[in-house]
Amino acid sequence: MSLFADILSTVFERRYVPFGLGRVDSRPLPDLTAELIGASGEVTGQAAARAILDRYAGMDDAAKRAFFTHLARERTIDPAALRAALEVYEKGEDKASYRALMQAAEPPRQELIRRLNQVPGATRALVAMRADLLRLGRGDDALMALDMDFRHLFASWFNRGFLVLRPISWESPAHILEKIIAYEAVHAIDSWDDLRRRLQPADRRCFAFFHPAMPDEPLIFVEVALTDGVPGSIQALLAEDRKAMHARDAKCAVFYSISNCQAGLASISFGNSLIKQVAADLSAELPALKTFVTLSPIPGLSRWMEAEGLKAKDDEALRRLAARYLVKAKRPDGSPLDPVARFHLGNGAQVHAVHAGADTSDKGRKQSGGAMVNYLYDLSKAAQNHERFATAQEVAQSAEIRALAAEKGQ
Amino acid sequence: MSLFADILSTVFERRYVPFGLGRVDSRPLPDLTAELIGASGEVTGQAAARAILDRYAGMDDAAKRAFFTHLARERTIDPAALRAALEVYEKGEDKASYRALMQAAEPPRQELIRRLNQVPGATRALVAMRADLLRLGRGDDALMALDMDFRHLFASWFNRGFLVLRPISWESPAHILEKIIAYEAVHAIDSWDDLRRRLQPADRRCFAFFHPAMPDEPLIFVEVALTDGVPGSIQALLAEDRKAMHARDAKCAVFYSISNCQAGLASISFGNSLIKQVAADLSAELPALKTFVTLSPIPGLSRWMEAEGLKAKDDEALRRLAARYLVKAKRPDGSPLDPVARFHLGNGAQVHAVHAGADTSDKGRKQSGGAMVNYLYDLSKAAQNHERFATAQEVAQSAEIRALAAEKGQ
Amino acid sequence: MSLFADILSTVFERRYVPFGLGRVDSRPLPDLTAELIGASGEVTGQAAARAILDRYAGMDDAAKRAFFTHLARERTIDPAALRAALEVYEKGEDKASYRALMQAAEPPRQELIRRLNQVPGATRALVAMRADLLRLGRGDDALMALDMDFRHLFASWFNRGFLVLRPISWESPAHILEKIIAYEAVHAIDSWDDLRRRLQPADRRCFAFFHPAMPDEPLIFVEVALTDGVPGSIQALLAEDRKAMHARDAKCAVFYSISNCQAGLASISFGNSLIKQVAADLSAELPALKTFVTLSPIPGLSRWMEAEGLKAKDDEALRRLAARYLVKAKRPDGSPLDPVARFHLGNGAQVHAVHAGADTSDKGRKQSGGAMVNYLYDLSKAAQNHERFATAQEVAQSAEIRALAAEKGQ
Amino acid sequence: MSLFADILSTVFERRYVPFGLGRVDSRPLPDLTAELIGASGEVTGQAAARAILDRYAGMDDAAKRAFFTHLARERTIDPAALRAALEVYEKGEDKASYRALMQAAEPPRQELIRRLNQVPGATRALVAMRADLLRLGRGDDALMALDMDFRHLFASWFNRGFLVLRPISWESPAHILEKIIAYEAVHAIDSWDDLRRRLQPADRRCFAFFHPAMPDEPLIFVEVALTDGVPGSIQALLAEDRKAMHARDAKCAVFYSISNCQAGLASISFGNSLIKQVAADLSAELPALKTFVTLSPIPGLSRWMEAEGLKAKDDEALRRLAARYLVKAKRPDGSPLDPVARFHLGNGAQVHAVHAGADTSDKGRKQSGGAMVNYLYDLSKAAQNHERFATAQEVAQSAEIRALAAEKGQ
Repeated sequence: MSLFADILSTVFERRYVPFGLGRVDSRPLPDLTAELIGASGEVTGQAAARAILDRYAGMDDAAKRAFFTHLARERTIDPAALRAALEVYEKGEDKASYRALMQAAEPPRQELIRRLNQVPGATRALVAMRADLLRLGRGDDALMALDMDFRHLFASWFNRGFLVLRPISWESPAHILEKIIAYEAVHAIDSWDDLRRRLQPADRRCFAFFHPAMPDEPLIFVEVALTDGVPGSIQALLAEDRKAMHARDAKCAVFYSISNCQAGLASISFGNSLIKQVAADLSAELPALKTFVTLSPIPGLSRWMEAEGLKAKDDEALRRLAARYLVKAKRPDGSPLDPVARFHLGNGAQVHAVHAGADTSDKGRKQSGGAMVNYLYDLSKAAQNHERFATAQEVAQSAEIRALAAEKGQ
Repeated sequence: MSLFADILSTVFERRYVPFGLGRVDSRPLPDLTAELIGASGEVTGQAAARAILDRYAGMDDAAKRAFFTHLARERTIDPAALRAALEVYEKGEDKASYRALMQAAEPPRQELIRRLNQVPGATRALVAMRADLLRLGRGDDALMALDMDFRHLFASWFNRGFLVLRPISWESPAHILEKIIAYEAVHAIDSWDDLRRRLQPADRRCFAFFHPAMPDEPLIFVEVALTDGVPGSIQALLAEDRKAMHARDAKCAVFYSISNCQAGLASISFGNSLIKQVAADLSAELPALKTFVTLSPIPGLSRWMEAEGLKAKDDEALRRLAARYLVKAKRPDGSPLDPVARFHLGNGAQVHAVHAGADTSDKGRKQSGGAMVNYLYDLSKAAQNHERFATAQEVAQSAEIRALAAEKGQ
Repeated sequence: MSLFADILSTVFERRYVPFGLGRVDSRPLPDLTAELIGASGEVTGQAAARAILDRYAGMDDAAKRAFFTHLARERTIDPAALRAALEVYEKGEDKASYRALMQAAEPPRQELIRRLNQVPGATRALVAMRADLLRLGRGDDALMALDMDFRHLFASWFNRGFLVLRPISWESPAHILEKIIAYEAVHAIDSWDDLRRRLQPADRRCFAFFHPAMPDEPLIFVEVALTDGVPGSIQALLAEDRKAMHARDAKCAVFYSISNCQAGLASISFGNSLIKQVAADLSAELPALKTFVTLSPIPGLSRWMEAEGLKAKDDEALRRLAARYLVKAKRPDGSPLDPVARFHLGNGAQVHAVHAGADTSDKGRKQSGGAMVNYLYDLSKAAQNHERFATAQEVAQSAEIRALAAEKGQ
Repeated sequence: MSLFADILSTVFERRYVPFGLGRVDSRPLPDLTAELIGASGEVTGQAAARAILDRYAGMDDAAKRAFFTHLARERTIDPAALRAALEVYEKGEDKASYRALMQAAEPPRQELIRRLNQVPGATRALVAMRADLLRLGRGDDALMALDMDFRHLFASWFNRGFLVLRPISWESPAHILEKIIAYEAVHAIDSWDDLRRRLQPADRRCFAFFHPAMPDEPLIFVEVALTDGVPGSIQALLAEDRKAMHARDAKCAVFYSISNCQAGLASISFGNSLIKQVAADLSAELPALKTFVTLSPIPGLSRWMEAEGLKAKDDEALRRLAARYLVKAKRPDGSPLDPVARFHLGNGAQVHAVHAGADTSDKGRKQSGGAMVNYLYDLSKAAQNHERFATAQEVAQSAEIRALAAEKGQ
């Protein structure tokens, strides 16, 4: 039976033979990828695409690495063909030579990935495939080049214009909420009761970006606390016995945790858009909100202090060192040493305040001696902050931080 | 005020200043496109993107052509840079040289279009932009090359995996239904009452593909009649006074009209997927359905008869000529002369039956002397049909058609 | 086969034998109603209920009148039984005697109607049944007494707490919109284009109450125009070529049409709640709205003028007579003669302004010489207005109306 | 400020002063109930209704009992007035005398409860109020008579025709799922993981009835296991390590737990409808399902054995005693002694099989020595079963049960 019969029977009978359960096409994978790339349009492509995805789903790491290596080596660009197409194009830039050049300039694996995506539900499988690639390909230049093609396509598919912001609440479906528990990367959620405390009170909010082709998979989410003032302790902010305030009375929105959910979407940036969009939505809903601020970890502080041979004799000294670290410690390229600082300063935020004893968890004590920082998203200064940061690597900071960082001594 | 302030104020205040109403950025468009392509990530891009889209929305055709020409000439590939990157890559295929090659090989306008799409609602505007380009650029090689880039991106964005099939019924929103009335291309819908007759009876169905980023815009739709047997008259099929049958008693599903809705998505093929998906869904819902067939126009029959100097003296002669035309009349490349035949045969359907007096409308009489044709989607033969058509240009046909086409005389 | 088998087979097979299509139970209707009232709980009731509804659906008016007469005469209260139960109760008010009294005091047809309502979809059928009863029973005391029981139950079922307010827009389902066209009672909607002009512009709104058991049937709807000031002409308000304003700039919300949709819900009052709820929702959405006003017909003006032998020599005279009519013409019980006035004054509105030449349609000229009136819903005065109206039949009115009504002469 | 002002300000400003937070009306409650009953239509009623509900929400048990006593004594029927109305009616049964009789025959508290329900969200509050009444009024005849009026109204409001069946799954909102955990009355759900095991596997289903006015509150739910054959052990059925089967392969649907959720809806029967509706829906979805059966506890078995001085020496003896108990042990009125048996036999089910060692939990061992029973819902016999049970108290039973119950000895 030919492939096309396969497609049609799959399509017409897919209520009986769901994705992944059918008879597996046993031909060598290179044959399948060749067929999928070369197939005459979409007509016969779906069967090959499904076969490849089904096969992939059953592979162990060695087989996956072999598959990636096949794509990396045999479905890459052909320099000679590209050179030939380029020469024709340079002689006369017409439509036909442009088309030929574009075809030669794109590695066939890009079209392969696009055609794999024709299968219903494939987007999620492809995101998982890239997670495998990142895990297995580290240090292998050819596989990292292959990853560039995945990343290139994903940046197009997961374009901001295609993402949907959805509030996450205690009324959200349980199968989404269990992912929030699983993916929380900053302050672990240790039970459903803990989750409820982060979602249900009137002064708590959570928002996530979703992609329509993966509606059950949050891509990134942010947890927000509505407060009266800028907070200086994560434990106080999340205390079980605190009394919730009315949202309409809150003056400050605190972004206290941002977590990426999909390893397969690494380097596809959503965080900046998410913070802005959430701030916009909250601002529209709650006009009393005047301050948008984070309560953020300082993950590299302890390591830096150790490297520099610095010790904090008291809280005040720790705050001084934290301020100094955040505004003065740099990577060779001049950007801030602290990764969280790089993210928020790159978004146009400023270093607003530092607090000792702000995160008394083991992790907090270990990474920063318990210190945390507020980055302030101040609308009237954000544009200027961003431009100075981008062009002159100037770190926006409050007067208090400036003074603290300038103090002498440990 | 810098651009970034612009973004943020737009974002934070967009409930007050909706898209398209803000102060227009008056800088030259090339400055804006340069900024958007070069912007450091997504942070400052949205303001420039919005400015370009706002400006575009106010342009007349001359200005649009100038804008397209700018993209075609100044945001295209740089052959010298591509050659240089290729040479480096050929010397050592590592990650860095691959990245550089990929960047040089992609015309900057592709990234420009992707970044324009960051603006909420931009997808629809970009589809409309391509419709303009196709209208204004006909015959201009540089603009047609630009169109290839649009088409390349749209093929990725409107990938089958991202489309959603939705039934259209008399319970659908009126603003969608008025688009069905407007876009129907085969058998015009002349009023809301006419539309209701196509949607509301138990033996009528309609389905459309939608893209999540344009949820109010059908991309393509198909109208279906559920019948007892294969029909031979479109007027009888659509008669106002016919008696509707129960859907569960129908044995035959007739695809009697397929219409593309978006000029800006020309050449992005959806029809094949739509027919298959609808057939699959109907088959699952209504197990008594055994036959999936079209009732299709023969748009080129009269023209061909005239060119060949043929005349039909009676209905039987017309059927004979229609059969001969459909299975034997070819284009220089060997494919069928009739465009509708090319579409359905390319999908694996067969020419099943021809009918005289089947379309008594002015249009029907003019284009085919009133003749119509059924293309049969027979699952057990479709794969073989497709392969023979694709490889040997063999036209699948019923015995009856074969006999008819073989008859001598006009 | 017993009734219970009937139920179960109906229930289990209802995807094959939908409501109304089954074999009809041919026993005399009194047997069926006796069985339904007496059935042991809900277990066997549904089959009898369905049988009665099916039979009813096929009846002509004579048969319906006979059915209603059966309910009126044979399923009414038994005075002797009630007297007996009352005597027992008076001797000792315990739980058992109360239960017996309550049973004797409720006519069995109430329980019959409740049990008919167990059938899925029956609520709509019962509302239609009452419409028949009102039509056929006019002037027949026994049938009007039966209607009191329908009305009593419907007042409970269609309690404000169970109603849902939904906006109606051009994005609403077409099968709902065609009902808006059909039910509009004040200013006829003559085409789908006309409907679109009432729904789609940014300064137009429409809201309806729905009941969850009849989600496709609006119960009552109100059409609203958002304007700059209080309008004095319905034709100007609805002009095809007017320019729509931004909703957020509107200062005035004009309720220009309120229509009841269900004849079977006559005397179940929704209008007061609808206006209040819509005003509340609009006020929350559009803070600039300061004035809530109607533009209402004066249906009894011409008739009153004729009865009083009054003629208006010019517009100003017509306004004077209209004001006088609205605030001074009374029914024997002291309430306003004009039915629309009774409705709005009863809601606490005041007579705000009258306009000549405000409705130039045939209907408008005939009923009121073209005059219309604004009733003002002024929040700070509505409570006082209502109380004075309810207790002292005092008509709230603006100073302008008071002066106009006091003017002498025709 | 008058009441009407109160309404309007509440209505117009309720976005600022949500339900329950406003200034409390401090007048004596009898004044408020008098006002609400007597209020001129719905216009002023909502404020009084809201005031009563707000006040009630703050009451302790003593105050609640006093409130109920007020309703029981002072808002009950007036026998003298009823007698007078009855006499007028008996003299001439016209519309006016019927209306007067109906008004006299209905205790004013019924209208009071209906008018309380006008407040948005009141239905839930009234259901909770009846739960209080049942708790506080036990043994007080006047309060139990008051409860009859609540029950009478609730039977009308929660009529089968108004209920909605919804599947409950792992994709349901968490705030609904936590109620499933809380309300499960038969086999306790001890954690979210346990809940997931009951909802997520392909062979597990759960369904609940909801009322549209309380969309967040399940009224009753049933848990279903899809199996190959009739099960004989609840622990095996719910085992953590069992392997889920494909739903489409299941031949048997097991209703293993039915739980009522609302104490305030006691005696309003939903269970019979729920089982039938779920069976109908499952049967439509999964044609392979042939058997609908319960796996039910035998709550009164141990108590009966003890009362009868019976002991089971082994499993076989226990099965024999269980069969005997289920089919022969009766209450004085001749109905089965076992409450679960009464429910299912009343629905037309038959006693199908008994199992020893079927519930090894503490509760199971205690109430029935670990025995459980399957009640079979056999469509072809259910009608006959029900009628024989209802008329002759005949217990439908399988041949196996009949033989077991007939065996001699313990």
